[in-house]
Amino acid sequence: MDMKFNFKEKIAPGYKNNGEARLGELQTAHGDIQTPVFMPVGTTGSVKGVDQPALVEMGAQIILGNTYHLWLRPGVEILKQVGGLRKWMKWPGPMLTDSGGFQVFSLAHNCKITEEGVIFKSHIDGQKMYLTPEKCIEIQEAIGSTIMMVLDVCPPLPNTRKKIQEAIDKSINWSRSCLRARTNKEAALFAIVQGGCENDLRKNHLEEICQIEEKNSTFGEKITFDGIALGGYSVGELREEMFASLSEVAPHMPNSKARYLMGVGKPRDLLDAVAAGLDMFDCVMPTRNARNGTLFTSFGHIQIKNARWRDHHKSLDPKCPCYSCQNYPASYLHHLHKAHEILGMTLASIHNLHFYLNLMSQMREQIAKGSFLDFRKQCYSDWGLD
Amino acid sequence: MDMKFNFKEKIAPGYKNNGEARLGELQTAHGDIQTPVFMPVGTTGSVKGVDQPALVEMGAQIILGNTYHLWLRPGVEILKQVGGLRKWMKWPGPMLTDSGGFQVFSLAHNCKITEEGVIFKSHIDGQKMYLTPEKCIEIQEAIGSTIMMVLDVCPPLPNTRKKIQEAIDKSINWSRSCLRARTNKEAALFAIVQGGCENDLRKNHLEEICQIEEKNSTFGEKITFDGIALGGYSVGELREEMFASLSEVAPHMPNSKARYLMGVGKPRDLLDAVAAGLDMFDCVMPTRNARNGTLFTSFGHIQIKNARWRDHHKSLDPKCPCYSCQNYPASYLHHLHKAHEILGMTLASIHNLHFYLNLMSQMREQIAKGSFLDFRKQCYSDWGLD
Repeated sequence: MDMKFNFKEKIAPGYKNNGEARLGELQTAHGDIQTPVFMPVGTTGSVKGVDQPALVEMGAQIILGNTYHLWLRPGVEILKQVGGLRKWMKWPGPMLTDSGGFQVFSLAHNCKITEEGVIFKSHIDGQKMYLTPEKCIEIQEAIGSTIMMVLDVCPPLPNTRKKIQEAIDKSINWSRSCLRARTNKEAALFAIVQGGCENDLRKNHLEEICQIEEKNSTFGEKITFDGIALGGYSVGELREEMFASLSEVAPHMPNSKARYLMGVGKPRDLLDAVAAGLDMFDCVMPTRNARNGTLFTSFGHIQIKNARWRDHHKSLDPKCPCYSCQNYPASYLHHLHKAHEILGMTLASIHNLHFYLNLMSQMREQIAKGSFLDFRKQCYSDWGLD
Repeated sequence: MDMKFNFKEKIAPGYKNNGEARLGELQTAHGDIQTPVFMPVGTTGSVKGVDQPALVEMGAQIILGNTYHLWLRPGVEILKQVGGLRKWMKWPGPMLTDSGGFQVFSLAHNCKITEEGVIFKSHIDGQKMYLTPEKCIEIQEAIGSTIMMVLDVCPPLPNTRKKIQEAIDKSINWSRSCLRARTNKEAALFAIVQGGCENDLRKNHLEEICQIEEKNSTFGEKITFDGIALGGYSVGELREEMFASLSEVAPHMPNSKARYLMGVGKPRDLLDAVAAGLDMFDCVMPTRNARNGTLFTSFGHIQIKNARWRDHHKSLDPKCPCYSCQNYPASYLHHLHKAHEILGMTLASIHNLHFYLNLMSQMREQIAKGSFLDFRKQCYSDWGLD
């Protein structure tokens, strides 16, 4: 089969002082991606506050879109007319699309789950919608996604084992349907493991996913998942609970496929998740925090509206090579945020995204050298963490 | 005296088919400005939604700052520490600062006018402030303004002749005080003519301003105003009333000095004001309208959120060479505005500012050729105006 998608492990877990961290390369139809990688979130066709050329300039390798939001607006018809979101928004690299399941459960009204999918009302205009695995794939193929995600059920935590198992069962059925519904050979499809912090349930789900293969009429043969994501973390549980679960589940993920931890997290979470062997990450935190004035720096995170920055006329972070720090003093950023200027949000978003992307780039360098755990320790110390 | 400011009339009113339109050059300490010129408004140290390099790229020659806003935030102390606003925000060209009088009367609370100045409460934190002509110059010099404006009293229209005359009398006293208070030889100071639509009062005020000279201890000699502005228009009167007044007052303004029409206006207003012999303009309209989705085009203004643009997958204005039109289809701009994305506001602001700046550039070309009135007629026709 002529698949354009492949994951290549370049440095395996356990090399020198790397812990479980590993180095890899995702080969896709829209360009190669070096892992571990952070993916800026562009929910509705824009990484909030940042223009596409700025994303290229700061070294973003891949960005996210969201199936739920893009289905409601602009809708499948427009996406098909423009030849996909990447072309429309002039994003030259790969794009991953979340399946929309998480957003349906968190944003939509009157959700009702059936065997075949989920019925809900749009949070924009109250229109009744019906999202099925087949529809989910149709939308993602219309978006022109490089990496699609299966439709899953993501139960909030804490929750009963029974509810979590029900979510898993439904997710398995839907993920099989997604595999069968695919028609675009250039795109990849990732499965999602649920299970809350019930590690046995998660491991069972993971094992089952690894064994799934479905006959696909377009492909003319049985196909499997191209990568595996861990979903349903960071939805209410303690940080310690999440990482305890992660360290038990991650080692069971196959080395031959990319491992994606969905919706996580803070910079320290990225360090710890990479140490646990994960490859791909996304989070709205760098842009959302930026708009509120919380900026990440080489000495920890700060609130730019704090009076401390009012007369700090040097760069916020002298070590930071980002556009904002290279061009404007912290006091100007402080002023823009106090005055609620759009430019303040833009400059802060550029800074935070750069921080995340640069952190990942440093991690890749350190893994290549076999000194990742030393680097993680140094970051903890620099950022004032325990 | 070693003045760095000069206005040079390059093509006088009456050349060929130009009407009263004229071409000029403002020579300033921070660079030369070709007139007629539109000045993007950067009230609090940022032209809303647009980064400084984008302003340079679109050909902005000079931008505005506002004394009232910058006094309240970041304040004189910070502005002095950073060596002025231009350096702080990395704006390489000249900057004009409005005196703050208009904003005090429109934004501040509990305004009370005395002989010496105006007492008011800050609209930000209710703090009691006292703006005098001397303070107004001190602030503008701290901002590092290229062109400063005198403190004036701007009465809302309609108003009684008595009130308007009182405003003029006060404005004359304050403008004299401003001349005496100056200490920076590199900056220019413009006077402001008031008078509502009472043309005789305006002409008297103008005549008096032209005769004013004040002994200044820093300069060691008597000094006069470097340019003359018409204030107090577009404050409630009809468009026709304003232009009737303008066409009667403008011809009495001295040819040797730049003529600035404050706070005006729509693209058609710029055409008509240039036709009346004015040289300099500012208005928040291009950026404010952009944020609301109203965009100016070569075929008139449009609302980008209108369903008409939903599936318009070509450039909004094929004739427009701006960054937004050259890179994104109208349907993407439509989507960004419907989705309330910051990028939508930024791209629209870039487009509208480019439209204004390009319009002025075309006007200058047409004046040079002596065909300005033909061009104005063509614009009216293209924009669907009477």
